[in-house]
Amino acid sequence: MASIGVGLIGTGYMGKCHALAWTGVKPVFGDTPDVRLASLCEVTDGLAQKRAGEFGFAKATSDWRALIADPAVDVVSITTPNQFHAEMAIAALQAGKHVWCEKPMAPKLADAQRMAEAARRSGKVAILGYNYVQSPAVRYIRSLLDEDAIGAVNHIRVEMDEDYLADSDAPHSWRSEASAGYGALDDFAVHPLSLIATLLGRPTSVFGEMSKPYADRPHQGGRRAVETSDIATALLRLPGGIAGAIHVNRCAWGRKGRLLIQIFGSRGMIVFDQERFNEVQVYVAEGRPADQGFRTILMGPAHQPYGRFIVAPGHQMGFNDLKIIECRALLARIAGEAAVAVDFDEGLAIERAVHAIAEASRKGAWVEV
Amino acid sequence: MASIGVGLIGTGYMGKCHALAWTGVKPVFGDTPDVRLASLCEVTDGLAQKRAGEFGFAKATSDWRALIADPAVDVVSITTPNQFHAEMAIAALQAGKHVWCEKPMAPKLADAQRMAEAARRSGKVAILGYNYVQSPAVRYIRSLLDEDAIGAVNHIRVEMDEDYLADSDAPHSWRSEASAGYGALDDFAVHPLSLIATLLGRPTSVFGEMSKPYADRPHQGGRRAVETSDIATALLRLPGGIAGAIHVNRCAWGRKGRLLIQIFGSRGMIVFDQERFNEVQVYVAEGRPADQGFRTILMGPAHQPYGRFIVAPGHQMGFNDLKIIECRALLARIAGEAAVAVDFDEGLAIERAVHAIAEASRKGAWVEV
Amino acid sequence: MASIGVGLIGTGYMGKCHALAWTGVKPVFGDTPDVRLASLCEVTDGLAQKRAGEFGFAKATSDWRALIADPAVDVVSITTPNQFHAEMAIAALQAGKHVWCEKPMAPKLADAQRMAEAARRSGKVAILGYNYVQSPAVRYIRSLLDEDAIGAVNHIRVEMDEDYLADSDAPHSWRSEASAGYGALDDFAVHPLSLIATLLGRPTSVFGEMSKPYADRPHQGGRRAVETSDIATALLRLPGGIAGAIHVNRCAWGRKGRLLIQIFGSRGMIVFDQERFNEVQVYVAEGRPADQGFRTILMGPAHQPYGRFIVAPGHQMGFNDLKIIECRALLARIAGEAAVAVDFDEGLAIERAVHAIAEASRKGAWVEV
Amino acid sequence: MASIGVGLIGTGYMGKCHALAWTGVKPVFGDTPDVRLASLCEVTDGLAQKRAGEFGFAKATSDWRALIADPAVDVVSITTPNQFHAEMAIAALQAGKHVWCEKPMAPKLADAQRMAEAARRSGKVAILGYNYVQSPAVRYIRSLLDEDAIGAVNHIRVEMDEDYLADSDAPHSWRSEASAGYGALDDFAVHPLSLIATLLGRPTSVFGEMSKPYADRPHQGGRRAVETSDIATALLRLPGGIAGAIHVNRCAWGRKGRLLIQIFGSRGMIVFDQERFNEVQVYVAEGRPADQGFRTILMGPAHQPYGRFIVAPGHQMGFNDLKIIECRALLARIAGEAAVAVDFDEGLAIERAVHAIAEASRKGAWVEV
Repeated sequence: MASIGVGLIGTGYMGKCHALAWTGVKPVFGDTPDVRLASLCEVTDGLAQKRAGEFGFAKATSDWRALIADPAVDVVSITTPNQFHAEMAIAALQAGKHVWCEKPMAPKLADAQRMAEAARRSGKVAILGYNYVQSPAVRYIRSLLDEDAIGAVNHIRVEMDEDYLADSDAPHSWRSEASAGYGALDDFAVHPLSLIATLLGRPTSVFGEMSKPYADRPHQGGRRAVETSDIATALLRLPGGIAGAIHVNRCAWGRKGRLLIQIFGSRGMIVFDQERFNEVQVYVAEGRPADQGFRTILMGPAHQPYGRFIVAPGHQMGFNDLKIIECRALLARIAGEAAVAVDFDEGLAIERAVHAIAEASRKGAWVEV
Repeated sequence: MASIGVGLIGTGYMGKCHALAWTGVKPVFGDTPDVRLASLCEVTDGLAQKRAGEFGFAKATSDWRALIADPAVDVVSITTPNQFHAEMAIAALQAGKHVWCEKPMAPKLADAQRMAEAARRSGKVAILGYNYVQSPAVRYIRSLLDEDAIGAVNHIRVEMDEDYLADSDAPHSWRSEASAGYGALDDFAVHPLSLIATLLGRPTSVFGEMSKPYADRPHQGGRRAVETSDIATALLRLPGGIAGAIHVNRCAWGRKGRLLIQIFGSRGMIVFDQERFNEVQVYVAEGRPADQGFRTILMGPAHQPYGRFIVAPGHQMGFNDLKIIECRALLARIAGEAAVAVDFDEGLAIERAVHAIAEASRKGAWVEV
Repeated sequence: MASIGVGLIGTGYMGKCHALAWTGVKPVFGDTPDVRLASLCEVTDGLAQKRAGEFGFAKATSDWRALIADPAVDVVSITTPNQFHAEMAIAALQAGKHVWCEKPMAPKLADAQRMAEAARRSGKVAILGYNYVQSPAVRYIRSLLDEDAIGAVNHIRVEMDEDYLADSDAPHSWRSEASAGYGALDDFAVHPLSLIATLLGRPTSVFGEMSKPYADRPHQGGRRAVETSDIATALLRLPGGIAGAIHVNRCAWGRKGRLLIQIFGSRGMIVFDQERFNEVQVYVAEGRPADQGFRTILMGPAHQPYGRFIVAPGHQMGFNDLKIIECRALLARIAGEAAVAVDFDEGLAIERAVHAIAEASRKGAWVEV
Repeated sequence: MASIGVGLIGTGYMGKCHALAWTGVKPVFGDTPDVRLASLCEVTDGLAQKRAGEFGFAKATSDWRALIADPAVDVVSITTPNQFHAEMAIAALQAGKHVWCEKPMAPKLADAQRMAEAARRSGKVAILGYNYVQSPAVRYIRSLLDEDAIGAVNHIRVEMDEDYLADSDAPHSWRSEASAGYGALDDFAVHPLSLIATLLGRPTSVFGEMSKPYADRPHQGGRRAVETSDIATALLRLPGGIAGAIHVNRCAWGRKGRLLIQIFGSRGMIVFDQERFNEVQVYVAEGRPADQGFRTILMGPAHQPYGRFIVAPGHQMGFNDLKIIECRALLARIAGEAAVAVDFDEGLAIERAVHAIAEASRKGAWVEV
């Protein structure tokens, strides 16, 4: 394929990230097809025009079905609110387009299932925006595990904490309504689950516990009950007897994007924090005891694809760069090559696990996934 | 009381720590009674003599009952293996002596109960060696919580990891036999539980999960099954709706004495790691967002009783110093003053929680403590 | 200006960074003129064609004078080896083009002077690629100093260490020849000097010391003497009685891109390391002594222009993003707006200081700049 | 020697540390002579009595000459203000006593010389209280250098920063008077110099620069000029072409006891900070580049004499423990064994270097030591 035509639906938080990724992927990697920024869709024609100008898209529309139908569009980036993912992704796949959809797939498991089925039936590439799995650090951790560098993994703990809802006097919003889902569980836990799936596999059974740091929030002069759980914990039983645990909290003051992973093996340990995602800490039990310690390894040209972004070591990669790597993986898959990415089937498994954790929390018992 | 006579039973790992504490407490604090190192007991007369010489004790014996009966002895330090604690502590209390017993109280809950009853009946002071609660850092954290510095606590996570059993090729030992207890749970979790009790209170119900990183270990030319669980997780429901979690692992390569505490509040967060116990990290949501961050606070003269050990800031305290502070707390209690310490009642509550977690793990269900 | 035409000379290490910056600046900031990638120059037509395809440039040439003469080109990015900077930059300025030239200006001070004169005479914008001054962190530090957040600065230390020449058995190269300059001094010290200039001003007098960690390196089967100094130290006297020090070392094993800045003030202190350039550490002496500590502040939307790259906090920016900010500053200056950047005059002052440090090192005495 | 009698002069900051060291050395190490706390001297009989009671000394006096003359005293700990060191130490040595004197030796170089001569003439052991060289970490670093673990050292940087004079509104005191010495240089730089001497040797020539962060301080309702320099920098030329640098600052807000050492070698690097003196960071250039990083090594039983204090790893040592190790080294030397310690000759070399740095600062030129 000499060139590929891109349609982008949505230009908010992640929409801009997709636009930047589509713009950067060819200059960074060099070996991709040419990227044509074919069409951009926003809620109004005016906003669509404005964003198309900023992002360099050839056409602008407020009709996402028109964008999907456009023959100039080969792949569709879907970055709209979660409840629209299913309809748009399925329509795009049915129209013969590849799909790059932001996570999570859909608030309802049934919709996620339909999306996965549509992807399977279409024969097209359909991946989700789990870009944390794309970093050189996570790739390096994968390679360490593949090489048996820390022996057999027997335990993993993952924490994901932010403070965007930590202010107890912030007004009640849709995020605290039951219709939004479980709370921190579906909002955050999908990230740890995607990383665990990428590194170790899928849980076979789960336990859960959810709690509400704040019972209510300001609303129309009074207080309104919070219906979601901003804190959640999941225990996982993973293949091979690996014990897993996930903690998520979106009311964790001071944590901005903490995603701490601790992997315990029979010969060593790996620690990684997304807040410092250019570093990996590795302990291997070898050599004299007096000399053993956690090595803080800075990502560099020895950790691909860092070198495609910058030639010299010691120059950090940024979040938006992860999206470029994800875009590269999508293009690789479209070209029929293997590449790490969370496809709709893997995404469905992640969302199944989320619902199982919620069920386990309700029941106070382990649930098979 | 112008002076106090000390009897020390056991001179191993913690026995030496007790000896050093009894030696240092008066020079450090100045305001205690004089400490008479009255009698020391070891398994043989020869070893007792040797240690008495090293530690400066006046008498040496291999008969612990004689030590307890000695009128020169006012307080007994018990640092023998756990299975002897109950018999010795109860005998000492019945003989009218104060008791400073190493943790945990006893492998069997019934024994711990008898110890607590004996303490209550005796009217004497009986505390356990939970010295982590004595550090200036933990005291400072308590004061922050008392002052509402981080608002209402809603979540706590504690991890305790070491690697002393991490070598999968280390020979099978009594620590891997079922008779030794549950494994990491009773070995380690008592520390997090003592800290949580000191900072937030006792759990009302618990969940548990235990796992074995290594199925077997070398034994007599072959391999023998490991019967204990070297990894354990507990979920706690604490008073006031606080959600707690404890992870313990004694096969965690690279972790030497990690005891990480994360306390989440409605206005801030506190992080503390025993591996760097001269530092506390505090985040408070105040001032401009641009200026907010975790403060790394070095313990110093502003954090008592640091100043009793060293006048200037920036000079770390050590583990043995914590034992001196614990000793000071014991002397304060003997003098009828208030002092932070884990007494036999609190210790019993901790051990009840341990057994409840194990039960929850077996049942796969929440258990009331 | 509705659009701006870009000519890029050189597509190596920094050439790619420029290309990525020109591609990303409009999508990221939205409010810039449209960027036309007009022409790209490389040493051969073939390579120029290849890179033009990858980076999306309209024309390709191996004749840099043709590129400069091209009326479609409004601004020229110069990323060739240092010895070509002067000729190209002066030609571009004389042709009425704005110039974005990589640092340092030129190996010889006389050439740098000619460049600065050409810039002044042209009335065009001419800036240098000192992108470290562009990070949200450095901007934040500037704002803290402007607000007097740490009181009057009285001392600054800057260290820049890398290990790209640390292997003593790496072959002798042009970098170890006297014709390459002084060594670490001109290679690295320009970065600390640019940061100090941006934050505090220019040194009035300097002292220097240079040393050679390795006397010789492998060369044609034998060893050849190293003529440059891979380690250098400079002491600075800055306006207002501020004492400054710079250490640079390009044989510092383990340091990949360390650029540590410590700023000492009368009411606080700031610490920053380019290896973790999304974090700033600030200590302010206020409140209770017990609560004081260095705050680790993560860059986020409160630290502009972070928010133009990513909406949410906790998502790191990368090195290439700094180049986009620098590109934005260039466009702002072209539009007649104020923007932080190191222009040719400031760059000349930096290079004057470098030569003065070298002179001081030779003389063993302080030298006025 | 079955037992050794101790005389202690002074019971302030370091006096208490000596008392604790003399109390703890036998219980900790076991293999020393018995320590008799023979006599204690303070400025008044009352205070002497009080401290003797607290510290457990048999006699108390306000006459230091009587203490020195006391036949029960074999070794004299001198912890009085610096100006008294010479007279007391020389008297003690002449009386045939061993001496443990706090650093620095004396404000005047001539006095330090007389002390060193007296020590040489006496044949007695005379060491100084440079206890930072005693930590397991510094011993470990020495062993790494001895083993050539990081290759040939070519560069060292040491920083020592505290904030005890950082408050610009703190009243003028004797520390800011010229009679107190140079300021930060003699107050602090002796520590880096003692560490460099222990690790690498003595400087052959030095350069210096001193500055005053605050021109004056509050005094009797007005302001009085500060006569000492609270900030100092020294450049060192060390044997073997090693380039050294020392920075000291006693107005460094937020630094409490920072003493950062960076040692650059031809195959690796070592970093150490006294504020976390239970940790050493080591980078060795071996193995795959992708796996290289600084190892953070926690001191433990593998790093002697940690194991004498505590059996298990992960339990930090404290500052007072360093004094116990120093005391052990003193006892070893008295017993005719080799032990790391800074004796009066080494101390004199350190103070010579201090004065040379001050001279270099005045002259603006390198000075031979």
